[in-house]
Amino acid sequence: MTKTRLHLYDTTLRDGQQTQGVQFSTPEKIRIANALDALGLDYIEGGWPGANPTDSAFFDDAPATQARMTAFGMTKRAGRSAENDDVLAAVLNANTGTVCLVGKSHDFHVTEALGITLPENVENIRASIAHLVAQGREALFDAEHFFDGYKANPDYALECVHAAHTAGARWVVLCDTNGGTLPSEIADITAKVIASGIPGTHVGIHTHNDTETAVAGSLAAVEAGARQIQGTLNGLGERCGNANLTTLIPTLLLKEPYKSRYTTGIAVEKLLGLTRLSRMLDDILNRVPQRQAPYVGASAFAHKAGLHASAIVKNPTTYEHIDPETVGNTRIIPMSNQAGQSNLRKRLAEAGLSVEKSDPALAQILDTIKEREDQGYSFDTAQASFELLARRALGLLPEYFEVKRYKVTIERRKNKYNQMVSLSEAMVVVKVGGEKKLSVSESMDATGSDRGPVNALAKALAKDLGPYQGLIEDIHLVDFKVRITQGGTEAVTRVIIDSEDSNGRRWSTVGVSPNIVDASFEALLDAVTWKLVHEGAEVQ
Amino acid sequence: MTKTRLHLYDTTLRDGQQTQGVQFSTPEKIRIANALDALGLDYIEGGWPGANPTDSAFFDDAPATQARMTAFGMTKRAGRSAENDDVLAAVLNANTGTVCLVGKSHDFHVTEALGITLPENVENIRASIAHLVAQGREALFDAEHFFDGYKANPDYALECVHAAHTAGARWVVLCDTNGGTLPSEIADITAKVIASGIPGTHVGIHTHNDTETAVAGSLAAVEAGARQIQGTLNGLGERCGNANLTTLIPTLLLKEPYKSRYTTGIAVEKLLGLTRLSRMLDDILNRVPQRQAPYVGASAFAHKAGLHASAIVKNPTTYEHIDPETVGNTRIIPMSNQAGQSNLRKRLAEAGLSVEKSDPALAQILDTIKEREDQGYSFDTAQASFELLARRALGLLPEYFEVKRYKVTIERRKNKYNQMVSLSEAMVVVKVGGEKKLSVSESMDATGSDRGPVNALAKALAKDLGPYQGLIEDIHLVDFKVRITQGGTEAVTRVIIDSEDSNGRRWSTVGVSPNIVDASFEALLDAVTWKLVHEGAEVQ
Repeated sequence: MTKTRLHLYDTTLRDGQQTQGVQFSTPEKIRIANALDALGLDYIEGGWPGANPTDSAFFDDAPATQARMTAFGMTKRAGRSAENDDVLAAVLNANTGTVCLVGKSHDFHVTEALGITLPENVENIRASIAHLVAQGREALFDAEHFFDGYKANPDYALECVHAAHTAGARWVVLCDTNGGTLPSEIADITAKVIASGIPGTHVGIHTHNDTETAVAGSLAAVEAGARQIQGTLNGLGERCGNANLTTLIPTLLLKEPYKSRYTTGIAVEKLLGLTRLSRMLDDILNRVPQRQAPYVGASAFAHKAGLHASAIVKNPTTYEHIDPETVGNTRIIPMSNQAGQSNLRKRLAEAGLSVEKSDPALAQILDTIKEREDQGYSFDTAQASFELLARRALGLLPEYFEVKRYKVTIERRKNKYNQMVSLSEAMVVVKVGGEKKLSVSESMDATGSDRGPVNALAKALAKDLGPYQGLIEDIHLVDFKVRITQGGTEAVTRVIIDSEDSNGRRWSTVGVSPNIVDASFEALLDAVTWKLVHEGAEVQ
Repeated sequence: MTKTRLHLYDTTLRDGQQTQGVQFSTPEKIRIANALDALGLDYIEGGWPGANPTDSAFFDDAPATQARMTAFGMTKRAGRSAENDDVLAAVLNANTGTVCLVGKSHDFHVTEALGITLPENVENIRASIAHLVAQGREALFDAEHFFDGYKANPDYALECVHAAHTAGARWVVLCDTNGGTLPSEIADITAKVIASGIPGTHVGIHTHNDTETAVAGSLAAVEAGARQIQGTLNGLGERCGNANLTTLIPTLLLKEPYKSRYTTGIAVEKLLGLTRLSRMLDDILNRVPQRQAPYVGASAFAHKAGLHASAIVKNPTTYEHIDPETVGNTRIIPMSNQAGQSNLRKRLAEAGLSVEKSDPALAQILDTIKEREDQGYSFDTAQASFELLARRALGLLPEYFEVKRYKVTIERRKNKYNQMVSLSEAMVVVKVGGEKKLSVSESMDATGSDRGPVNALAKALAKDLGPYQGLIEDIHLVDFKVRITQGGTEAVTRVIIDSEDSNGRRWSTVGVSPNIVDASFEALLDAVTWKLVHEGAEVQ
């Protein structure tokens, strides 16, 4: 059977930027565009040239891509020609081969939001698309509010998309702008558009997730005949987000009935980088990756139920719809008081600790985990702290050094130039190999900026560990997360620290205390100790 | 037209507890069960009696609900009678009117995971359900891996659900355990089950979100004739979560075609509490509420695009699929460098600040916001800090007091009992009404526990603000969030503090600094200042 080609259109850099709290810089946009291109997207919508300085700067510097780089804009306004519309001119001036213009197709919006007549709007669409075509551009028409418009006035909605199609638009894209349309309605209306004479090979779908059905709505449109899908990485986008390409892409490539029916510009082996791409976007945005995200989330292949975990160990397909490795993700058997000993042994084995079924240490470790989780610890995330806890119970954790005490001072005052400045100082006392060592550090970095008390403390702790010093010098802190949790009757602070070394190893440790600096210190201490264990340090 | 009744079955307390990082205590389970009951769910699955101490304790203390309280368990094991299976007996001993048993329906799992013959498994299902019925219980059968099982061996999968149905199960529930099945397949297979002779009024659907289509899969099953939906609040659940009832409920009640066709046990006015219910669950779990969650997320009705924002001001239906108030949510016009002046004026009006279109302060405020956002501030979230920034630019912010300096000391050492203890002390110097005031506080609370440096600093700051003291004493800190953000070339810390007063007012402020204590101090300062503004304090 010949497969049908689907075209994937990414709008992370335009509609994705409408996410509350999201703001890309120009270099970030370039980095994302290159990553999308490497994945094999057909179209990359880079932004709206002229609408804001970042988007204009991006098109000035747009990377050369295999994907068709697309500038976004809107149809010309009434009362002037397409040639004389300065907003449209700014879009064309970005000099992209492809241009996508949004326009109205819902009668109510034409009269209410634009305040023009219905025929004027049709003429704006026609003239704008014709102008793009005359300039030799590939033209797309995003029909805003198309589904609501079709339900209110089907003839008018169709008239709008036919105006664009007849004027030479390569694609008319049916946009569910308000995100309320359910998949069955999307399927019906998409089929009616195609039946009205616009071939499915010229019809695209653009959905939003306001009813949590953006992915399903896109698939429904494809089943009805549409051949272009618009979406964003990680489902970024206005309000509840756009259709999530990070989900749609593996579904189209790996799952039936799509896998047998359709082909895209993306090779299946490119999916190996999908989890990393998703995390990279979160890194750029400083967002905590969504653990429950399909395919790429840290929990997507986490098997918590005791029954599931024991079956997974026998055969992974028992509780997994795909192999996590095909999308660059990994299987996790997390700890928690739901977990039985079979979970625990699996998890210990992952940490290189082989423990017999009959070992009484297993029950003791489970008890300790439960007790700590009641206090606010979370070992699902902090796998390195879990490993240290288990090693301690198994008698496999040497005491490399002992912290006797520490003291941190944070001060904010005016300096001699009458500027407010802040500075932290930390003093740590450790005992290593029978010798007491006092180390002091301050939070000021090489540029004279205050990096804060946890930084001062980390530096003081890592300043002189005597014989171990060489083993820990390449540790650096890559993330630091804090949550107030409820431990008993009083709120306590949980700190999770992600550390990395020069080998690219990354590990997470946890500390819990009502005192944020003390919780941080506990996590720092675990980070150093884990590193010493994995460097094979010998106790002095 | 007579509406068809759909039955809603909540499994937040059982499958929801399989979420990585989620662990309910018994009192929390009781609180959630009462909230689900008040909403109007038909069934509440409370847990698996005998599987863990928390679930057993819950059923000992289960609240009296209108909803049918349901105990979960599994079908009897082979080689013993239903009467003599101790795991099944523990489930029955919870004495609930309704019992739901999970069992296999996929031939591969019967032979591979259970290691028994196909007929033995059918007999286990039949005998277990018959035992429940003989005990006078309402029985449900959760057919695990039903869709995968049907695709592998349709006759056997049907034989399993018919065995349960014939034995007297009130519902057979088709479970997409691995979450990989797409909505069109769910619709097809559900229709085939009904065509095989089990009426839709006895068929339920249980989906997982591994392809981001759990909600759509549930709706597809309903369109195919199923009449019970299983799901969880906020889409909690194993791996990527279960079908999200927080989305499904408003969709069924508010959206066509469901609204006209179906009725549930939930009155539409109950939806007014939906957003609060969703946030309550996150509070219990100490999870950051998902901003992009449909209906109930903080961003669900946030209109960032400049064009959208100006249309929304004219008529909210232009960019909203439902009125946010129907689900207890609110519209937001966030700030960001995408926002035009129309967004800004709307946002200022919300804060009670009416500014003329022509006022040059508008451009100045936008510039300041942009500059601060570049440094790492986030005003989308911290609306109180946004308001203070705007008031400052408009000359509407009195200087109530001035902070001259502060100093915090954090110490950890051994006490006289040789225990490690920590303590923080803070000293703040402020100038109020021409008078200099030094205040000092420590982090120890009434019980002798260390509450940490930010607590000490907050107490010292709020200890003596002279004439303002009476206005600020009811402020308390309800949440404290920290993120490392990238500001220029160096990482900085962003702290967001949520405060509340005795009137139940809640406001968020932001501070940014490489020093976490300093960032916290900035946010605390804004929290106090915002409170003084809203108490109408007069400068002394």
